[in-house]
Amino acid sequence: MEQDLKSTIALLARTPDVLNALLRGLPEEWTHRNEGGDTWSAFDVVGHLIHGERTDWMPRLHRILESGQSRAFDRFDRFAQEKESEGKSLEQLLDRFGRRRADNLAALRALNLTRADFARRGQHPALGVVTLSQLVATWAVHDLTHLHQLSRLMAHQYREAVGPWSVYLGVLQCAGHSSP
Amino acid sequence: MEQDLKSTIALLARTPDVLNALLRGLPEEWTHRNEGGDTWSAFDVVGHLIHGERTDWMPRLHRILESGQSRAFDRFDRFAQEKESEGKSLEQLLDRFGRRRADNLAALRALNLTRADFARRGQHPALGVVTLSQLVATWAVHDLTHLHQLSRLMAHQYREAVGPWSVYLGVLQCAGHSSP
Repeated sequence: MEQDLKSTIALLARTPDVLNALLRGLPEEWTHRNEGGDTWSAFDVVGHLIHGERTDWMPRLHRILESGQSRAFDRFDRFAQEKESEGKSLEQLLDRFGRRRADNLAALRALNLTRADFARRGQHPALGVVTLSQLVATWAVHDLTHLHQLSRLMAHQYREAVGPWSVYLGVLQCAGHSSP
Repeated sequence: MEQDLKSTIALLARTPDVLNALLRGLPEEWTHRNEGGDTWSAFDVVGHLIHGERTDWMPRLHRILESGQSRAFDRFDRFAQEKESEGKSLEQLLDRFGRRRADNLAALRALNLTRADFARRGQHPALGVVTLSQLVATWAVHDLTHLHQLSRLMAHQYREAVGPWSVYLGVLQCAGHSSP
């Protein structure tokens, strides 16, 4: 289906509540363990989402409105959260994510974007030409990508505990789908 | 890590709230569309989870306590929800899932299972010998498998809308991981 701002915002507005329901107050064995090596824990994922709210989605949207294709987006640092999350609790990160997301959605609504605005083009540093509509659709699917990752990394903690049932549990067959 | 009842219940108790935050009141384009063919929508997934609460997890746990390996589990009908969900709203299904899950967790807690109980063995009709501990761990990972599926089937609705960003969005690379 085509991107529709009401549908997109309906999803984006829910993510803080979904993460609160899933993670707030959960024992650390679920929230602070990863899938091994340099993979992320739930704590890292929330930090990454905060960083996106601050530096990625709305700044890129404004870049399109202000400069079109003449000035490419700044690159998104996918590892910046490590430093920013240092010394904070998961609850603090969830609070911060909820506030930033609410502020961003209020700002997005206040722009009263028109059909013509959604067709405006920007320049992605690696992907080339993208539209404003694709940017906001990606914002929502990016949330779902990390919900996908959260379900997988939490399930990983019980990989041995489920015994022979592991063959039936799809999430345990998922090896992740890293960006190229 | 090993299955631990407190950790397992911490996850199981959250799933109704996670599904409410994600799905309740969401436009039908997100909740009633699937990934094509005979795949499931979010509505179908919630129906499947209700069926599991009713016929799978606690009945199998009681089977182990009562009969051990001498009587195999009844098979789990993974498609039974179609009939049971007919004519109901997603909100009705979410209410029902929340009630059944709460009832089951209250019953589980009331059993005051001991370390020896968790080591008890049952007979799975296809997988062979399984323990009670593996059964309750599987109950929790089964929730996460369907959260994994929900994020994927919802993201699928915006597969075209994200344009060139699709290559960066892991959830769109996931083709699912069906049971063998």
